[in-house]
Amino acid sequence: MRVTELVLHPIAIADPPLRSSYGLHAPFALRTIVELKTDSGLTGISETYGGDGPLAGLEAVRARVIGMDPFQLAGLWRDMSAAASTGDRTQTYFVPGENPLDAYARTFAAIEIACLDVIGKAVGKPVCDVIGGRVRDEVSFSAYLFYKHGGGGGVGDDAREDEYGEVLSAEACLRECKQMIAQYGFREIKLKGGVLDPAIEIASIRMLRREFGAAYPLRIDPNCAWSVDTSVEVGRALKEELSGGGYLEDPCASLEGMGELRRRLLAEGNHTPQASNVATTCFADVPRAKELDAVQIVLCDPHYWGGMRNVQQLSNLTSVLGMGMSMHSNSHLGVSLMAMTHVAAACPNLIYACDTHYPWQGKKDEVAAGGRIPFTNGCVKISGKPGLGVDLDYDQLARGRERYHKIPFRKRDDEAEMRKHVDPNWKRVLPRW
Amino acid sequence: MRVTELVLHPIAIADPPLRSSYGLHAPFALRTIVELKTDSGLTGISETYGGDGPLAGLEAVRARVIGMDPFQLAGLWRDMSAAASTGDRTQTYFVPGENPLDAYARTFAAIEIACLDVIGKAVGKPVCDVIGGRVRDEVSFSAYLFYKHGGGGGVGDDAREDEYGEVLSAEACLRECKQMIAQYGFREIKLKGGVLDPAIEIASIRMLRREFGAAYPLRIDPNCAWSVDTSVEVGRALKEELSGGGYLEDPCASLEGMGELRRRLLAEGNHTPQASNVATTCFADVPRAKELDAVQIVLCDPHYWGGMRNVQQLSNLTSVLGMGMSMHSNSHLGVSLMAMTHVAAACPNLIYACDTHYPWQGKKDEVAAGGRIPFTNGCVKISGKPGLGVDLDYDQLARGRERYHKIPFRKRDDEAEMRKHVDPNWKRVLPRW
Repeated sequence: MRVTELVLHPIAIADPPLRSSYGLHAPFALRTIVELKTDSGLTGISETYGGDGPLAGLEAVRARVIGMDPFQLAGLWRDMSAAASTGDRTQTYFVPGENPLDAYARTFAAIEIACLDVIGKAVGKPVCDVIGGRVRDEVSFSAYLFYKHGGGGGVGDDAREDEYGEVLSAEACLRECKQMIAQYGFREIKLKGGVLDPAIEIASIRMLRREFGAAYPLRIDPNCAWSVDTSVEVGRALKEELSGGGYLEDPCASLEGMGELRRRLLAEGNHTPQASNVATTCFADVPRAKELDAVQIVLCDPHYWGGMRNVQQLSNLTSVLGMGMSMHSNSHLGVSLMAMTHVAAACPNLIYACDTHYPWQGKKDEVAAGGRIPFTNGCVKISGKPGLGVDLDYDQLARGRERYHKIPFRKRDDEAEMRKHVDPNWKRVLPRW
Repeated sequence: MRVTELVLHPIAIADPPLRSSYGLHAPFALRTIVELKTDSGLTGISETYGGDGPLAGLEAVRARVIGMDPFQLAGLWRDMSAAASTGDRTQTYFVPGENPLDAYARTFAAIEIACLDVIGKAVGKPVCDVIGGRVRDEVSFSAYLFYKHGGGGGVGDDAREDEYGEVLSAEACLRECKQMIAQYGFREIKLKGGVLDPAIEIASIRMLRREFGAAYPLRIDPNCAWSVDTSVEVGRALKEELSGGGYLEDPCASLEGMGELRRRLLAEGNHTPQASNVATTCFADVPRAKELDAVQIVLCDPHYWGGMRNVQQLSNLTSVLGMGMSMHSNSHLGVSLMAMTHVAAACPNLIYACDTHYPWQGKKDEVAAGGRIPFTNGCVKISGKPGLGVDLDYDQLARGRERYHKIPFRKRDDEAEMRKHVDPNWKRVLPRW
C-alpha cells in the first residue's frame, strides 16, 4: 500500500464568542480535513488545525508523503523531528496550534492519524486496536464550560443557533453547565477561567459543586492568567471543590511558577493536583515538570503531541513518573473527536475525562457522514467500524470550504477579536490577576 | 480473527559450557516455542524461556488467550500486570528468566510476540512495521564473548561441535573473538566477565582493544561480581578501552552500588557509561536508576520487559530521560533472534549493537525453516516477509522436543552445574572480588 494523493480541505466552522485569557474566539474556527489516498483504493482521513500555517506545513511534506507506505510512520517522525528546536515550545504566549517550534509535530500528527485510519480500513480494525488494543470501549469526556458573549458564532447564512446565550456570571455558568449536562450526560466538569475576576470564577466553581456534588469532579483552567499569589488564593478557596478527581490547570505561567505554587499549597496541607498543557507541550518538558513537582497531570492531545503513538508514549511516561494524564482539546469536528476517542481508548493512564469543545460546534458544520457523533452519559463509544469509524460527508465538506473562502480569517487570533469586539486597546497581560 | 489454539513446544538445545558469575551453563538450554493458531488459518509464533516454570505460566493464561482477538493486547497486559508485585524484580540473585515476580511479563511477551507475528501475516507486513514502522532496515549485533570450558554443549548424539575450545585466559579470549568476528562480522564486542580474576579480565579487554582498535566499541559485564571498590579499579584500568561507544555493564550489585561507583568515577574525570539489565528490569526501576545516576544505558529485552511494545515504550522513556538503550540476550534460536531484530528496528533510541547468544547455538538445533539466520557485517536484515519473517521447521522442532524429554533439566541452574563439574562446594557469592 502506497500513498498516492494528499488532499487538503481548509474549512471554517461557526464558533461561538467564547472567552479565555487568550482573548475571544472569532466567529469562525479554522480546521483542515486531510484525505490521504492510497493505491489500495482506500482513503485515510484526519482533522487538524486550520488556516495558512497548518496548510503550508502539510504542503511542505507532500513530496515526502506521496509514495510512502502508511505503515512507515517512525521513519517519518524521525525525519520530521530531526530539526526540532529546543526553544520555548510552551503555549504561554501562543494559542494552541500557533507555536512555530512544534509545527512539525502537528503536521506529523495529521499525516499519522490519516495513515492509521487507512491502516485500520485495510486491516478491518478500529484504530485503537491497530495501535495496541483498547483498554476501554468508551471514552469519557468532560463538560467544557466557557464564559461567553451571547450568540453561537458564524455570520449571516453561516450563523449558528445558540442555546447558551451570554455567560458572564456564576449564575449563568451554572445554567450553561446544567444545559450541557442535560444534553450530553457529562460526569466531569471543566471551567475555562482567567476571564472574570477570580472571585466570580471561585463563585462559579462553588455553585457548580453545590449543584452537582462530589460525584462530578471539577477543574478550572485560567491559562496562566493568575500570579502565583492569586493562584495560591484560588487554590486555597477551592481546596474542597477541586478535590476528588478535580484539578487546577495552568493557573499561572511557567513550570517555575507552578512549582512555587505547589510548594506553597503543600505547605498548608493543600494537595490540589496541578495540570498543564501550557507549560508541558512536549516530552522534554515532562522530566522538568516532575522534578519541580510543578505538574501532576499532563494534558495530552494527539494533534500537537505528534499523533496517537506519541500520546501512548506519554501515557507510559507519565505512568512511570507517577503522574496522571488528561486530554486537551481545541475547537473541532467529528473526525478529531474520533481520533481523540481512539487514542484515549488505547491509553491506560488516561484516567480523567477528556476535554472537548464539541458541544460548541453545530450540526450545520459537521463534516462526518451521518452528522454529529453521539454522546451517551458523556461518553463516546468505539464502534466496531474499521479505522477512525467515521467517513466524510462531501457536501458538508464543500460547504466548509466555501465558508473558508468567504471569510478573511487565516489564523487564530483571539487578541484581535477582543480588540474588535470588546476593547480596542485590549492586550493579553500575564498575570492579569 | 480469533485465537483458536495455543500450542506449546518445550525444547532443549545444546549449549556450550559458558561461564558467568551465575556459574556454568548446563549442556542444554531450555526454550519454549509458542504457536498461536487463529480461525483465519494463520498461525503466529514466538520463542521464550524454557522449562517447567515458563510452561506453567503459559498454561495459566491459556483460557484467557483462547478466543481472544490478537489485536487486543493492551487489555491482556492490563489484566496480566494488574497483580504485579512491587518486590525485588532485579536479576541480582536470579539468572534472567527465573525471578518469579516478573513471570507475568515473560508470559505476556510470548503471547504478544506470537500475536504480532500473526497480525503481520494477516496484514502482509513485517512486525517492525506493524508496531509503528522501522527506523532501520538492519540491526547490528555485538560479538558476545564468554570464558568457557572446552566443548560445544549437548550430550551423546545431541552434542554440538565446538570451534572455540577452552577459553580461560586473555589470549584465548582474543582468539575466540577473532573467530567469531571472522564468521559473523560483528563490529561491537561484549565480554561476559565476573569469571576470572579481574586482572585477567582487564587484560582480555586490553588485548581486544589492541587488536581491534577504537572502531570496535567494547563492553564488559561481570553480572555484579565486583565490589564497588573493585568496580572503581576496573573502571579506572579500562577508562580508555571502554570509551567511544563501550560501557561497563552491571559491574556491582544494586542501583545504590552503581550510583556510588558512578560518583567515584566521575570524581576522577572518568565518564565510562554504566549499563544494566540486572538492577533495572522493569519501568519502575528506571526513574530511580536515573535519579541515582546509577545507569546511563538500560538494557531492554522483549522477552522479559513484557514484549515489543513495552520495549518501544522503554526506548521513548530512556530517550526522554537522556539515557541510552541497548539489548540483553539469553541463549536462543532464530525465532527469538527475529523478534529481537524486529523490535530493535522499531526503537529509535536503541543506539548500541544488541547482545545475542546466537553464535553459541548450532544448526543442529535451529527450529527456523531454512536453518540458521544469516548475519552480514554483524547485522540481521529485516526481510520483506510478513510477521517475524520466520517459519518453523517441524522436523527440527520435533527433535528439540525429543531432546527435552530425554534430559533431566527443567530449570536453568548455573550454580548446580558449577557444583557438578567444577567445585562441589561452589556457591555464588556477591561480590566475589
